[in-house]
Amino acid sequence: MDKKKRIVIALGGNALGNTLPEQMAAVKITAKAIVDLIEEGCEVVVAHGNGPQVGMINNAMAALSREDANQPNTPLSVCVAMSQAYIGYDLQNALREELINRGITNIPVATMITQIRVDQDDPAFQNPSKPIGHFMTEEQARVAEEKYSYIMKEDSGRGWRRVVASPKPAEIIEIGAIRSLVDSGQLVIACGGGGIPVMRQGNHLKGASAVIDKDFASCLLAEELDADFLIILTAVEKVAINFGKPDETWLDDLSVEEAEKYIGEGHFAPGSMLPKVQAAVKFAGSGEGRTALITLLEKAKDGILGKTGTRIHQ
Amino acid sequence: MDKKKRIVIALGGNALGNTLPEQMAAVKITAKAIVDLIEEGCEVVVAHGNGPQVGMINNAMAALSREDANQPNTPLSVCVAMSQAYIGYDLQNALREELINRGITNIPVATMITQIRVDQDDPAFQNPSKPIGHFMTEEQARVAEEKYSYIMKEDSGRGWRRVVASPKPAEIIEIGAIRSLVDSGQLVIACGGGGIPVMRQGNHLKGASAVIDKDFASCLLAEELDADFLIILTAVEKVAINFGKPDETWLDDLSVEEAEKYIGEGHFAPGSMLPKVQAAVKFAGSGEGRTALITLLEKAKDGILGKTGTRIHQ
Repeated sequence: MDKKKRIVIALGGNALGNTLPEQMAAVKITAKAIVDLIEEGCEVVVAHGNGPQVGMINNAMAALSREDANQPNTPLSVCVAMSQAYIGYDLQNALREELINRGITNIPVATMITQIRVDQDDPAFQNPSKPIGHFMTEEQARVAEEKYSYIMKEDSGRGWRRVVASPKPAEIIEIGAIRSLVDSGQLVIACGGGGIPVMRQGNHLKGASAVIDKDFASCLLAEELDADFLIILTAVEKVAINFGKPDETWLDDLSVEEAEKYIGEGHFAPGSMLPKVQAAVKFAGSGEGRTALITLLEKAKDGILGKTGTRIHQ
Repeated sequence: MDKKKRIVIALGGNALGNTLPEQMAAVKITAKAIVDLIEEGCEVVVAHGNGPQVGMINNAMAALSREDANQPNTPLSVCVAMSQAYIGYDLQNALREELINRGITNIPVATMITQIRVDQDDPAFQNPSKPIGHFMTEEQARVAEEKYSYIMKEDSGRGWRRVVASPKPAEIIEIGAIRSLVDSGQLVIACGGGGIPVMRQGNHLKGASAVIDKDFASCLLAEELDADFLIILTAVEKVAINFGKPDETWLDDLSVEEAEKYIGEGHFAPGSMLPKVQAAVKFAGSGEGRTALITLLEKAKDGILGKTGTRIHQ
């Protein structure tokens, strides 16, 4: 590439594994794909999900409060904060090691604890729908409703799960610190798990019982950092219309308008490909020269080079 | 003060409370004392301990692995990482709020996940002596020894506790990121819990089953940032010689040589005042114009103004 491209990459929490040994293996693969981009001359900022990890931490803190009456239940926002360190520590080490292995010793890696403000009037709070944590029996669900004021929903015959709101990210509180590190040439991990969701109450930031979609959080991060690319990683190499049907078509390159038309026609599954395409469209539509790319982790480099993936741009 | 003084302040983990509600109350008091220093024109960097918090997180992760056979026990280094976010998130919010309450809106606050390298030949690894986590019965202690290879010690009739090594900090891995943020005017929280202890294995950093003394970590941070002051907070306003004896004498001001003489004479209790005085002496001895101050949180401002506390300098 001619000029140093700034890339925000959004990793899935599921791709980071369900246990610490799985995470330690997964971050090695992730680190290779990210350092591939750096070797291509890109400046990379890493955001990531935390679905399995925040569920695990939430379960651990709940297990503790069952065993120790002095320990009250831990709010979800604090569990998200802990998941940023749980993942960031491993991921930054894997990135550091992969950089040094390839002889790149001038790019330090840092993890920022990141809060993201959400609007308390966000309609998502009226309709909590994002399932988190483990499955429960109906009896356990009733206890959780009563004891912790959780909202519980039955999940297609597999049991009951807690659901929380998934409001849109409005403001990255630590954007100044993130920008300062990125501008000084650091490889920064930020907005982990979609960011710690907080609401403004006067001068106070209060943790929200919510999780922010990591693709929307990554989109906001990419906008704020004036990135050239937002890479949203997923389990398929390209986005399809008429997915699973005889006329299924894989998409290479589409304009914001085309992508919006396909969204309107209902081609993308809510809770799966839809938010990814929506975040991609939002970023691509936010400024000239901004491209969103949806592809597989191992195809990220080829995607940036224009060889594969689905690109959305103005 | 004539010129902007750079201060590293080392908060005790015990002063941050044993539960989240206690922590949320404690950080408000802490924030007031720190913002007092900023109002005096100082540039502040915050380090902190994590004794009760890392013990609690360790207990929670152990409780989870008892309930869920898929979740292996979580290494201490990962628990330290999580404690940095658990504390940093609350502390940075309390600091942000206190700054805004006083009309200071140009100082952002950020928490850095910080690893500190220790030497695997550190003699502390031969004699693990730092107790962490909760008390156990002898029977529970035997199980922990067998199942997790913990080293357990009986603690003066109160039960059995896990002990780990407390090696000296050798290198702050993220010092570049910390310096970059401090230099750009951010209020940075770093080296939480004495830093995540890691050992070098080739290009890899491996988490160590250890905890680093937060006063020694703060000393290294202050040296690396070329601070003017290292403030070590403790439960007494000043350091005493002949503590608790008829000739008890509170110390106002002493040279590095005087402090070393008192250390040699055994005036300071190991595991309590001794490491604080040792860290203070190390910082004061590391360069001209460097002053260490040992005092109470609520006396930090008066201490910087020369009104109280024990000062150690060349």
